[in-house]
Amino acid sequence: MRNFNEDNITQAVLERLSHCADARTRQISEALVRHLHAFVKEIEPSEAEWTSAITFLTRTGQMCSDTRQEFILLSDTLGVSMLVDAINHRFAGNATETTVLGPFYVEEAQDLPLGAYISHASDGPPMIVEGSVFDTRGEPVANALIETWHADDHGFYDVQRATGKGALDMRARFHADDAGHFWYRSIVPVPYPVPNDGPVGKMLDAQGRHPYRPAHVHFKVSAPDFETIVTHVFLEGDAYLDSDVVFGVKDALIAKLETVEGATSLAGHPVTPGTARLAYRFVLPDSR
Amino acid sequence: MRNFNEDNITQAVLERLSHCADARTRQISEALVRHLHAFVKEIEPSEAEWTSAITFLTRTGQMCSDTRQEFILLSDTLGVSMLVDAINHRFAGNATETTVLGPFYVEEAQDLPLGAYISHASDGPPMIVEGSVFDTRGEPVANALIETWHADDHGFYDVQRATGKGALDMRARFHADDAGHFWYRSIVPVPYPVPNDGPVGKMLDAQGRHPYRPAHVHFKVSAPDFETIVTHVFLEGDAYLDSDVVFGVKDALIAKLETVEGATSLAGHPVTPGTARLAYRFVLPDSR
Ligand SMILES: [Fe+2]
Ligand SMILES: [Fe+2]
Repeated sequence: MRNFNEDNITQAVLERLSHCADARTRQISEALVRHLHAFVKEIEPSEAEWTSAITFLTRTGQMCSDTRQEFILLSDTLGVSMLVDAINHRFAGNATETTVLGPFYVEEAQDLPLGAYISHASDGPPMIVEGSVFDTRGEPVANALIETWHADDHGFYDVQRATGKGALDMRARFHADDAGHFWYRSIVPVPYPVPNDGPVGKMLDAQGRHPYRPAHVHFKVSAPDFETIVTHVFLEGDAYLDSDVVFGVKDALIAKLETVEGATSLAGHPVTPGTARLAYRFVLPDSR
Repeated sequence: MRNFNEDNITQAVLERLSHCADARTRQISEALVRHLHAFVKEIEPSEAEWTSAITFLTRTGQMCSDTRQEFILLSDTLGVSMLVDAINHRFAGNATETTVLGPFYVEEAQDLPLGAYISHASDGPPMIVEGSVFDTRGEPVANALIETWHADDHGFYDVQRATGKGALDMRARFHADDAGHFWYRSIVPVPYPVPNDGPVGKMLDAQGRHPYRPAHVHFKVSAPDFETIVTHVFLEGDAYLDSDVVFGVKDALIAKLETVEGATSLAGHPVTPGTARLAYRFVLPDSR
C-alpha cells in the first residue's frame, strides 16, 4: 500500500478502514471518504484554496463558545440541518411538521406557570401566545411540556446579549393544562439575521445571500409516549418567508398574528385591546 | 421557496446560490452542497449522530493552535491532502515526486551554512544528509533553496516540545552550492505517531487504525524559474512504509540509510566512521 495517486487513493483509504470494529462507524467513515474525495476531484482545489478551506473550518470551530455554535450555523445555512430534520421526522398523517432546532435552544430555561410574562428586558409590542397540544386522534395531551423561545424586538436572543446565559429572557418551559392548552405573554419577535460576524457570515456574503430569518417563535413539545416535536411558528406576511437563510419555512407552520379587539380576558386575566395574539394547534405523533 | 423536504432541499440550496458573484465561489459552493447532501442522504444520520459530527468538528477547530493544526491532520488522515497534492502536481517526466507538507512546517526556520549541525536538543545516532538539485535536463540548479525538517529520536518535532516555536531544532534552510549540492548534519529520525490526543486520534482509534508514519525527512526545494517541490525522503526498511497513516509513501521517495565506513571526510570535514548517510537527488520541474 504505497504510491498513491488521483486514481487509487480513494480505494486505498477505504481499504484502510477494513479493521474498523463498529459497523456503523465503518459505514459512515467509508461514505465520508467517498463523498469528500468526489468533491475534491470535482473542484480540483489549488493548494491556496485547500489552505483557505482549512482556515475556514478552523475559524468556524474557534468561533464556537458556550453561547455560539458556528458549525450548527454552517449546517443550517447549507440546508444540512433541514435535511437531517426531514430524514429523522418521516411522520405519517397529521402530526405537526418539524423544523430546525437552531443554535439558540437552552435546556435549562425556567419552568413558569401558564400566563406568565417571559420578556423582562425587552420593549416590543405585547403578544399573547396560545397553543393546544393534541394527539393524532384528536385527543388533548394533558400536561405536555412546551419549551418555547424567541428573539426580541431588535432580533436578538437573550444569549446574544452581553449577559449571555446569565439572564435568560424570552424563553420558558410550560406545562399544558388538562385540555392540552397553554398560553403565555411576551412581545412580538421580529425577523433577524443569523450571527454573521464570523466565518459563516463571510460565506453568506461571498455566496451573495442575505442572513435573515423570518420572524418566528420556537417550540419544543414533548410528552411521555409521544415523539417530541421541534418546530417554529412563523408570522404570516413576513418578508423573508420565501428566503429563510436556513430553509426552515413550511406553509403549515405559518400563523396569522391576530389583534385582540375590544376589552377581553384570557383564562380570567384581562387582555388590553390591540394586543397581538399568536395561536397554534400542535399534534404529537405516537412514539415509534 | 418553502416547504423543503428530502426530495427538494438540495435543489433549493443550489438555487439560493444563483446570486453568487464570483464564478469559482459558486462552483465550489454548489459542489459542496451536492456532495455534502449526498453524503447525508446516504448515511441518514440520527440526530444524535449529527450532534456528534458538530461536536467533532468543533473540537477539531478548538484543538488548533500556533503549533497544532488538527484540520490539516484530519485532511491528511482521510487521504485528502495527498489527493490535493496529486491534483496540483501533475508533473510530466522525471521531476521528483511530491508528498504532503504535513503540519510541522515552519516558515521562519534559520538560514544555515552547508554542513551545519541542526539537532541541538536531541540525542539520536548521527546522520549526514546529502542532496543535489537538478533540472529535468540534468543541469544542476545552483543556489537552490532547501528547507528541511524532521522528527527527533523520540518521534517528536521541535514545535511539539514544551518550548513550542521558542526553540526551533532539527530544521533549517540551506542554499545549494554552484553544483546544486547541499549537505548537513543531524540525527536519524524515527517513525512517529501523528498527534493522537485530539479528535483525529479518537477517529483513528474508532476506525481501527494506527497513527504512525514511517521515518522520513521533509524537504521543500525551490529556485527561481522552477516549480517548488514539497516532498519527503523515507528511510528504506521502515515497518510503516505500507501503512503510513497519511498515505504519503512513494517508492521513488525511499532511500537507503547507508553507513559511512572507515574514516572519511565530506567537503573537507572529517566524518566519524559508522555515521549514517542519507542521500537524494532532487529534480525540479520548470515553472509552468
Ligand atoms: Fe430562531
Ligand atoms: Fe513528518
